[in-house]
Amino acid sequence: TLQHLFKQVFKASLELMGEDEQKTLLVSRKKHPENTVVNVKDTLIGDGVQKLIAGPCSVESEEQVLTVAKALKERGISLLRGGAFKPRTSPYDFQGLGLEGLKILKKAGDQYDMAVISEIVSPNDIETALDYVDVIQIGARNMHNFELLKEVGMTDKPVLLKRGLSATISEFIHAAEYVLSRGNTNLMLCERGIRTYETATRNTLDISAIPILKQETHLPVLADVTHSTGRRDLLLPAAKAALAIGADAVMAEVHPDPAVALSDSAQQMDIAEFNEFVTTLRESNLLKDVAAKASI
Amino acid sequence: TLQHLFKQVFKASLELMGEDEQKTLLVSRKKHPENTVVNVKDTLIGDGVQKLIAGPCSVESEEQVLTVAKALKERGISLLRGGAFKPRTSPYDFQGLGLEGLKILKKAGDQYDMAVISEIVSPNDIETALDYVDVIQIGARNMHNFELLKEVGMTDKPVLLKRGLSATISEFIHAAEYVLSRGNTNLMLCERGIRTYETATRNTLDISAIPILKQETHLPVLADVTHSTGRRDLLLPAAKAALAIGADAVMAEVHPDPAVALSDSAQQMDIAEFNEFVTTLRESNLLKDVAAKASI
Amino acid sequence: TLQHLFKQVFKASLELMGEDEQKTLLVSRKKHPENTVVNVKDTLIGDGVQKLIAGPCSVESEEQVLTVAKALKERGISLLRGGAFKPRTSPYDFQGLGLEGLKILKKAGDQYDMAVISEIVSPNDIETALDYVDVIQIGARNMHNFELLKEVGMTDKPVLLKRGLSATISEFIHAAEYVLSRGNTNLMLCERGIRTYETATRNTLDISAIPILKQETHLPVLADVTHSTGRRDLLLPAAKAALAIGADAVMAEVHPDPAVALSDSAQQMDIAEFNEFVTTLRESNLLKDVAAKASI
Amino acid sequence: TLQHLFKQVFKASLELMGEDEQKTLLVSRKKHPENTVVNVKDTLIGDGVQKLIAGPCSVESEEQVLTVAKALKERGISLLRGGAFKPRTSPYDFQGLGLEGLKILKKAGDQYDMAVISEIVSPNDIETALDYVDVIQIGARNMHNFELLKEVGMTDKPVLLKRGLSATISEFIHAAEYVLSRGNTNLMLCERGIRTYETATRNTLDISAIPILKQETHLPVLADVTHSTGRRDLLLPAAKAALAIGADAVMAEVHPDPAVALSDSAQQMDIAEFNEFVTTLRESNLLKDVAAKASI
Repeated sequence: TLQHLFKQVFKASLELMGEDEQKTLLVSRKKHPENTVVNVKDTLIGDGVQKLIAGPCSVESEEQVLTVAKALKERGISLLRGGAFKPRTSPYDFQGLGLEGLKILKKAGDQYDMAVISEIVSPNDIETALDYVDVIQIGARNMHNFELLKEVGMTDKPVLLKRGLSATISEFIHAAEYVLSRGNTNLMLCERGIRTYETATRNTLDISAIPILKQETHLPVLADVTHSTGRRDLLLPAAKAALAIGADAVMAEVHPDPAVALSDSAQQMDIAEFNEFVTTLRESNLLKDVAAKASI
Repeated sequence: TLQHLFKQVFKASLELMGEDEQKTLLVSRKKHPENTVVNVKDTLIGDGVQKLIAGPCSVESEEQVLTVAKALKERGISLLRGGAFKPRTSPYDFQGLGLEGLKILKKAGDQYDMAVISEIVSPNDIETALDYVDVIQIGARNMHNFELLKEVGMTDKPVLLKRGLSATISEFIHAAEYVLSRGNTNLMLCERGIRTYETATRNTLDISAIPILKQETHLPVLADVTHSTGRRDLLLPAAKAALAIGADAVMAEVHPDPAVALSDSAQQMDIAEFNEFVTTLRESNLLKDVAAKASI
Repeated sequence: TLQHLFKQVFKASLELMGEDEQKTLLVSRKKHPENTVVNVKDTLIGDGVQKLIAGPCSVESEEQVLTVAKALKERGISLLRGGAFKPRTSPYDFQGLGLEGLKILKKAGDQYDMAVISEIVSPNDIETALDYVDVIQIGARNMHNFELLKEVGMTDKPVLLKRGLSATISEFIHAAEYVLSRGNTNLMLCERGIRTYETATRNTLDISAIPILKQETHLPVLADVTHSTGRRDLLLPAAKAALAIGADAVMAEVHPDPAVALSDSAQQMDIAEFNEFVTTLRESNLLKDVAAKASI
Repeated sequence: TLQHLFKQVFKASLELMGEDEQKTLLVSRKKHPENTVVNVKDTLIGDGVQKLIAGPCSVESEEQVLTVAKALKERGISLLRGGAFKPRTSPYDFQGLGLEGLKILKKAGDQYDMAVISEIVSPNDIETALDYVDVIQIGARNMHNFELLKEVGMTDKPVLLKRGLSATISEFIHAAEYVLSRGNTNLMLCERGIRTYETATRNTLDISAIPILKQETHLPVLADVTHSTGRRDLLLPAAKAALAIGADAVMAEVHPDPAVALSDSAQQMDIAEFNEFVTTLRESNLLKDVAAKASI
């Protein structure tokens, strides 16, 4: 029938157009079939060995950061995260230590030979950040801040781009393209939960986004289990799912004393909990990282 | 300060009320700490050994169902699903074979000694269904059909209750309570994806719902990877995540020739794909089912 | 270019298919360009004169219902709603008076010469309902209960169909088609808010759905301002918006003493508030109903 | 009972905390009960006389902008919008004329004595913008770009802040607080639709947000009917609803030739359509603006 014919033409043209666009995007796996591996101070992300990234939500003091860094190092983890510039819903919430926070992170990174990751929220702070951090994080609230994406795209610093609060996967991919289109290919994507009607969790971890992003792009894909769930009791199960589905790294928040944390106290692990988290993941054989055998 | 005092009282009273209500629900783990294990024709669900459930979206013919049943049996899988009454968005779409479909399922179940699972959509069909199926499925569109829930609650047949299209976890738990409140404790819950703004997948698999439901209730929790993703290429990764996070069973659709299926052709595996799906899950050590060692 | 050519063919075939399907639906305005006017006990809905529908969430007693009916009658309102069968999230919440409630409604309808509207939740209650109510309401939780839709489709009783909790407009239209496909054309559609991430309101009133449903179908379209907002302080503004955008009727809940209501106490108006609601709508010239001049 | 007592304490403490916070916010009506009226080049917004704001999605040429400006002026409309810096999903889409676009807008504003509104996306462009525009717009994608909010907060230029793609009303209010907390009280809020699962419209116009924002804050509240619906055929009905519910102004997009527009061609009106839009709103008595009598 005529209708059937049209349907066939329709499908063919749709696929053609889709393929066409995917080919032109620099982030697309069609353009670049091999996995991109990002080298972060000699730790490789996207090389097939899954990594853990951990650290406090906010940098609060040198002592706090060094305590966490030491704990990570003892478990063979070399990627330390911590927030110095905090985008907060209210202007009256703790906004982070700023440059002071970056200095503390750098000190910890130097002392324990770890790579440090921290969010930058203004184009004007990027040049400064280059001296202090090993990975610039672009947070969920800034995924659509294209001016910021263009700026980090003009550096060669590794970038960790989080999915926006309610960004589609397609929008996320195009945000990534903003970075690559300016020349910086050291980009990692991070699923961190999306906003839905469900209130049992802070956000809804869109676990399927991980294999989709791996298929559609050649970039490493991470899972932030802390912000996606917002619940300490779900960090371990969510990490298991993310590792099983193929995330290149899992990110979680650790604080020496979560009860007094200046932000997100309900969702950070303390150091004992973190140690158990690492041990359980390694024993389950879900996390097959470098240190797995050495330090369960 | 007064405000601080109020906050403490507020938290205390909130927790008290929450605990109080959870205790009164029959589905609550607080009421009944041990796992409920549902016996489906001698296959146990919820006993710690993860299961696969598979079969065609719709029962279309005896040959179709027997072909699939045989393929499952050869892999040591004894839970066969198939739709006889199909709730479809349009009244002009294929509505299923009805009673004829149930008879075909029963024949397959008898021939291969498998348990059969099929959706019932009207209270008036439940009595008939008791003679033909081993598990009555209540579909997502009927999770809020409380009359149907009450009816199956008055039988002692195992029930598989799917989460509604946009039901909260709390609503899902209360829907389950409708069944238990009428006396039937042979209930299994099934996460099947929720409706969100994301269109890359048919629904968004709410993977975190699985551990939450395991914590909050004592019932077995399943994951339907077919309807949650709606994409054949995501069935395997989604199954890995669901098994890793602790689902008691994974449900997926298999059809001898998906291209000509009368419903959901884009998301069903053919038999070769299904065999690979099973092999990969068993080899990955994620699915540790009874047949794992025997029949990789 | 080839791509451009494909795009044109794609658009053409897409439109053709869309038009094709819309033509075949009985609810479609393409199939039936004139407005359907539903006659409810001599009150016309969809005739260009906007109506108010009001009454308590649940029928609780004869006195309660007669009090409200009298108040409506005094303002020239002849459409009384009230719930006798209540689909409630928890099996332990008040489930309605059932048949007793229908009898109370009928008595009020007879005494004040008003049409009564009440929800039916089971196919088995429809025959009984035919004797007691003038309009059968199918609630949001049952919009996807196709067995129920088929049953009311086989009567000639006016039906008020509410949009499902998270139904798309397309799904809503197809649910309506279930009713018309069985022969009953006395159907009214009711937008009642959709489930979104926003928690400031109980649901999000999808105001744009009203003109879309008016364009796509020939059926009367109503707005339920109570369930969409869930807030007494928003009933009046929401009603203004619904009337301005072209709703054929607005439905709101009124209770003689909302504080002691057995359901939804936070969102019902008391009788004084309702009188002010009616007066304000009539004075604003937004509600141009029959009684407008007579009884401001 | 004890439980009842706790519930009462709980409610009381909840209200107390809520009130407490609302009092401290500078945007809160509890802090500042009178309406804020923003003076935009002698046109007042928030003074009880509803306004229209119109103009092309993107500034494309001087001729284009002057054509639209002339058409608005003839209808007594003195608020012209146009995008010079365009945040686009893809880096390869038209990104706007930048400073050149601002110059064109200023020329149109000078020639026709109109106020011009344009979006700024980088903190670094704000100082330049002060010389060219009468209102700085912060777009939906930047509602969470707190660095940008702080920067415009340090000027005294009127600011039009759009609600984020999936921002809650509470987050929107706190984003507004970022601006006021830095000293700038010339702020207007704009509801522009939220992201939901519904695909019949580009976004879902959250009409209830308008009265909520009017209640919670003292700021003028606008409705963008173009981006909320994304459909030319819904601009008029959506504008009627927004005006009826109390929006201080309605914003819509007009282009001399939408079919060739460099962005958003499907949702802009041409000049004849716009004239009919204005006439219909004025004749309906829904838009009671200054020019209403003079120029229907």
